[in-house]
Amino acid sequence: MKNVFGNNITVTLFGESHGEQIGAVLDGIAPGIEIDMEFICKQLELRKPQGKISTQRVETDEPHIVSGVFEGKTTGTPICILFENSNTKSKDYSKTKNLMRPGHADFTAIEKYHGFADYRGGGHFSGRITTPIVAVGAILIKALQNKGIYIGSHIQKCGPIKDRGFEDYASDIAELNNKIFPVLDKKAAEEMHGLMVSAAEEGDSVGGVLETVVTGIPSGVGEPWFDSMESMLAHALFSVPAVKGVEFGEGFHFADMKGSEANDAFEVKDGKVVTKTNHNGGINGGITNGMPIRFQTVVKPTASIYKKQETVNIETMENEILQIHGRHDPAIIPRARVVVDSMTAIVLADMLAVRFGTDWLLGEN
Amino acid sequence: MKNVFGNNITVTLFGESHGEQIGAVLDGIAPGIEIDMEFICKQLELRKPQGKISTQRVETDEPHIVSGVFEGKTTGTPICILFENSNTKSKDYSKTKNLMRPGHADFTAIEKYHGFADYRGGGHFSGRITTPIVAVGAILIKALQNKGIYIGSHIQKCGPIKDRGFEDYASDIAELNNKIFPVLDKKAAEEMHGLMVSAAEEGDSVGGVLETVVTGIPSGVGEPWFDSMESMLAHALFSVPAVKGVEFGEGFHFADMKGSEANDAFEVKDGKVVTKTNHNGGINGGITNGMPIRFQTVVKPTASIYKKQETVNIETMENEILQIHGRHDPAIIPRARVVVDSMTAIVLADMLAVRFGTDWLLGEN
Amino acid sequence: MKNVFGNNITVTLFGESHGEQIGAVLDGIAPGIEIDMEFICKQLELRKPQGKISTQRVETDEPHIVSGVFEGKTTGTPICILFENSNTKSKDYSKTKNLMRPGHADFTAIEKYHGFADYRGGGHFSGRITTPIVAVGAILIKALQNKGIYIGSHIQKCGPIKDRGFEDYASDIAELNNKIFPVLDKKAAEEMHGLMVSAAEEGDSVGGVLETVVTGIPSGVGEPWFDSMESMLAHALFSVPAVKGVEFGEGFHFADMKGSEANDAFEVKDGKVVTKTNHNGGINGGITNGMPIRFQTVVKPTASIYKKQETVNIETMENEILQIHGRHDPAIIPRARVVVDSMTAIVLADMLAVRFGTDWLLGEN
Amino acid sequence: MKNVFGNNITVTLFGESHGEQIGAVLDGIAPGIEIDMEFICKQLELRKPQGKISTQRVETDEPHIVSGVFEGKTTGTPICILFENSNTKSKDYSKTKNLMRPGHADFTAIEKYHGFADYRGGGHFSGRITTPIVAVGAILIKALQNKGIYIGSHIQKCGPIKDRGFEDYASDIAELNNKIFPVLDKKAAEEMHGLMVSAAEEGDSVGGVLETVVTGIPSGVGEPWFDSMESMLAHALFSVPAVKGVEFGEGFHFADMKGSEANDAFEVKDGKVVTKTNHNGGINGGITNGMPIRFQTVVKPTASIYKKQETVNIETMENEILQIHGRHDPAIIPRARVVVDSMTAIVLADMLAVRFGTDWLLGEN
Repeated sequence: MKNVFGNNITVTLFGESHGEQIGAVLDGIAPGIEIDMEFICKQLELRKPQGKISTQRVETDEPHIVSGVFEGKTTGTPICILFENSNTKSKDYSKTKNLMRPGHADFTAIEKYHGFADYRGGGHFSGRITTPIVAVGAILIKALQNKGIYIGSHIQKCGPIKDRGFEDYASDIAELNNKIFPVLDKKAAEEMHGLMVSAAEEGDSVGGVLETVVTGIPSGVGEPWFDSMESMLAHALFSVPAVKGVEFGEGFHFADMKGSEANDAFEVKDGKVVTKTNHNGGINGGITNGMPIRFQTVVKPTASIYKKQETVNIETMENEILQIHGRHDPAIIPRARVVVDSMTAIVLADMLAVRFGTDWLLGEN
Repeated sequence: MKNVFGNNITVTLFGESHGEQIGAVLDGIAPGIEIDMEFICKQLELRKPQGKISTQRVETDEPHIVSGVFEGKTTGTPICILFENSNTKSKDYSKTKNLMRPGHADFTAIEKYHGFADYRGGGHFSGRITTPIVAVGAILIKALQNKGIYIGSHIQKCGPIKDRGFEDYASDIAELNNKIFPVLDKKAAEEMHGLMVSAAEEGDSVGGVLETVVTGIPSGVGEPWFDSMESMLAHALFSVPAVKGVEFGEGFHFADMKGSEANDAFEVKDGKVVTKTNHNGGINGGITNGMPIRFQTVVKPTASIYKKQETVNIETMENEILQIHGRHDPAIIPRARVVVDSMTAIVLADMLAVRFGTDWLLGEN
Repeated sequence: MKNVFGNNITVTLFGESHGEQIGAVLDGIAPGIEIDMEFICKQLELRKPQGKISTQRVETDEPHIVSGVFEGKTTGTPICILFENSNTKSKDYSKTKNLMRPGHADFTAIEKYHGFADYRGGGHFSGRITTPIVAVGAILIKALQNKGIYIGSHIQKCGPIKDRGFEDYASDIAELNNKIFPVLDKKAAEEMHGLMVSAAEEGDSVGGVLETVVTGIPSGVGEPWFDSMESMLAHALFSVPAVKGVEFGEGFHFADMKGSEANDAFEVKDGKVVTKTNHNGGINGGITNGMPIRFQTVVKPTASIYKKQETVNIETMENEILQIHGRHDPAIIPRARVVVDSMTAIVLADMLAVRFGTDWLLGEN
Repeated sequence: MKNVFGNNITVTLFGESHGEQIGAVLDGIAPGIEIDMEFICKQLELRKPQGKISTQRVETDEPHIVSGVFEGKTTGTPICILFENSNTKSKDYSKTKNLMRPGHADFTAIEKYHGFADYRGGGHFSGRITTPIVAVGAILIKALQNKGIYIGSHIQKCGPIKDRGFEDYASDIAELNNKIFPVLDKKAAEEMHGLMVSAAEEGDSVGGVLETVVTGIPSGVGEPWFDSMESMLAHALFSVPAVKGVEFGEGFHFADMKGSEANDAFEVKDGKVVTKTNHNGGINGGITNGMPIRFQTVVKPTASIYKKQETVNIETMENEILQIHGRHDPAIIPRARVVVDSMTAIVLADMLAVRFGTDWLLGEN
């Protein structure tokens, strides 16, 4: 499918950067789940542009739930969440619409939609369309927390700067979920922020790697072969603009390991089977083993930069020089974090519903 | 879905390592496509164990097409391909079935299937189940070649050893597709082979990274957001056992790049829009841009090693020491190559059919 | 899936009778299709309550397209159409919410959604939710007409009264599509209307049968076995509330026919293969044969009647007598017509896109 | 999808009448379900040609399970069931292959598959392909019975002859499931059989209506709007060749009823909510209400008849007279019964798995 994802729980996405409204429909969620508007807004806050390292486009980003919620709880029927695009500038895009921005979907959109797509601000390909994903994700993140499942991500690496790894999952995740700039180590945070500011000053941008951890997920979840837990998570994550790589556990580092190092030994602990290490990121054979799920996602540098770039004019078919104006984030990774968490929640909720039925989220923990 | 993948063209997978037969059903392929049994067998040959670095289980791996092909051509109806499991040893698995092999799906299969799964030789999770994927993939690889689309992969990296990159796509791909050990540089090939042999001697195993290139793919293919080209490829690739990471273009290296380095400048060349570099791996916004698709897949070290490993006995719930016998590949990456190529072909054929209809493969190039 | 339908073109539905907004998302439609708001409104008019035989709830039913349309044409990205529920009465439902209305989904909604569903006015099960289906359908009906494909339905039968059959497809379809009360024969129309009025006077309701015809559909469309043209049409039609039967061609009358009567003889006419009769409704083996598609849909009598009915109080679990107040249609079949036409258009557009690709609707006829 | 059906439990179908093997893959079934080969064979027996009213093609129809079953129980992984086409006559089809048989898919297959389809004996469209559906259905019918869910069908009507209705569901269903000729009333059975024999003597064929009942289904099952219980059942039933109509409860008879007659009054009985009548066939708003599901399916007269028929030669594009030889059933409805029961079981098992998770069939009743 195109803008629909999921098996038992589905998300349908719609909207353009400069269209009237954007939104998502969440279908299949169990009835009786409390809707915490404050939490949804808090999550949306994490996606918002921040200070020097962010675009100045300020949307109120007020989520508007128009269906599927009754007396503060999910009804079990589709939840449609809308956002007004109140802050779309009346800027004239007609001058630049034929100049294909490198790193963006301008050119491929023309190849696919024959020039009928809304080109203003990236149209349907704009990062703005992740807003409803965050809102939908917030509902599921909260519902999963009520079942003892917690999701947390930090910027593991940005340029040469690395954050410390997770130490205590519970407290680290709690800390991250309250941080606008999701870095565990204070000094690393400062350095990363500095790197972003200096990239901004150069009219350039930087990328980075997010590390995500999920705790409390039951074992036995995943639908191999094709709907393995890794397949489904990667499917959703690669839908996020700017994501160009996903790896589980040791990921690409496995290429440097021996089998004796890579395998996670099992042991019995408190009457339960656990692994002594977690190189495989909590997933064996595409199915959760009860250990924390752990994966990394690379976010490429923001495609919109101020430096002059070579490109083509798609109408005249001539080479031209493009200079992008307006304001753009020198790094979207701080804001991408909550999108990744949201996509993770969508996949987990769906996989749990496939495994345990549509009511699982409603049940007692 | 579980063992079904695809939208317009689907693959259904079945079988266990020591069951009677394994196979796949390929549905939705255009009618009139020639079936080249020799090519299918050649592809299967690439998946077979080889010499010192491979298990001694030798299957004849004779593909048996029982439907969907008439007078040597596809009919347009489902193609079922079967393989006999002729060489399943009568070995007694009952002694070891309760010892969970680290890095394998033994434990997660018990958590999911409540102990009813066929545990012999990894059952449905065995790498052997990739055999029908290769057969199905071969049909599609050949059909795509007839449309000018070529797929090739090499071992980019194994431990510390690196292959040279692609130089001339056409000749490099042709060369790789005829090589059992898919490495471009002769010296790198020898060193990688040496590393695998020495790992075998230590009773250990190694992993590696495959780099895959697809040339000739039309622009405008991909169904954002959720069925982006990256999403669909990653979905399929993460279904392959031992794959733990997938990245497109520069992938995780994007974390070290500036936007000005990461963006691929456009230019007009021979009246066509191309990019000067291809850091984004031929995909922008989830849609192909007409440049070669390029991605890397990490294959973890073979989970079956001879070194003693700590594990649990799932019946007694006691810690035990496991020593795996029999023969196993110290590296499965040489054999994983054709599985990755096959999965790639499955995704591309499906995405092309979604975009251009069920007859596209049949049409004139 | 639940509120998502389709393969290449999908429709996602959301909303409740007394919720804030209702709507649908149409995804996968070709770019460049002109949006004729006047036509959409005209189609919505056909769904609206009419005079004596309809409920007095009057919604303005103004469609609000918030995405996927740019400069009056489809962009190829998801179209979200919204409707405000402006006219939801402040009526107190709390008195009757525990009385399960016979023939409605009140009780089954409680069994499925555990009492969390929005019970006001039937909630998500209200016929009102067909409004966005009609809007989405209108876009597709118009696009199909531009490809020479026409859909028309009439009330074939209501109680003992029968309409005449189709004579000249083109003119009959054109006539029906301009009629609020879709009956071909004037006298039959008057009698049916009289029957509905007299049912209303008795506080009762009546059902009927719609006959639908599609002309201009290419041959070779349908994806047997499971996505046969009949399967997909029936799937969509049985999603419409009150539809309890669907039959193709002679349908249930086939039980009274001999094979020699039922088979449609082929002949060559103007260099084309056609059938002399069309007992099979234009479909053989689940695939269109190029003749008009013809099917009948039965619509049960409106479940909301004024006569006293026996029922239970779901809270007290005691038998009670229910008397429904407010105003309701004594027959919904005149309004169901455009919903059936819309569902038909959705299925056809999807099946054509699966067969011929996402751009088919855009192409030259 | 094409030859794949279902959401949580899927069936993939393959094979041609005169191909090597036909079969199906059942995926998603709970692990630990006992496989009763005797029961599967008994069900297959119900599909076999019988005496004077059936074709003489006798297949041994021996089901061959090659995966997904271990130590007599389902493993939870895909079950592939194969059947050899041992009895394919070496008859020369080349003479008649260009003569399109009226009522068959010969012509539409050419329109869809461009003449590449296997035309021998109807190829993939042959009724023979229902054999694996019956085998897969048998596994699920048995598993559903273990959960207290029973399915039974009888020929309600054949030409002018009518069977009596269901009286005691339990004993009637048990009786039918042991009858080759599924008619409850002995005299009606004789008359129907007589009608079929006399149609055979005339070189003609007859159709009929099957009535199906399902008891023991829990309430709250069904996924409105689009995967309503009626939508899913109809989708599957219309995949069966020769099925041209499906109606639930009173079905087309609703057109002659008043709302006061059509609505099923609720009452409390033994502490449970039940309906006093069951005109709606156990389904309200697309969701089961706990009453027996009841529907009717019309099976058109066998398309293969001996009488001369007008048709076209698709190669010469000239009108010709066709006379079909070989032996064919004058009525397939007695054999279609078990196919309808099987499809019903597939849909119910899938819908129950979507609602309650993949393990539901395994659980305690």
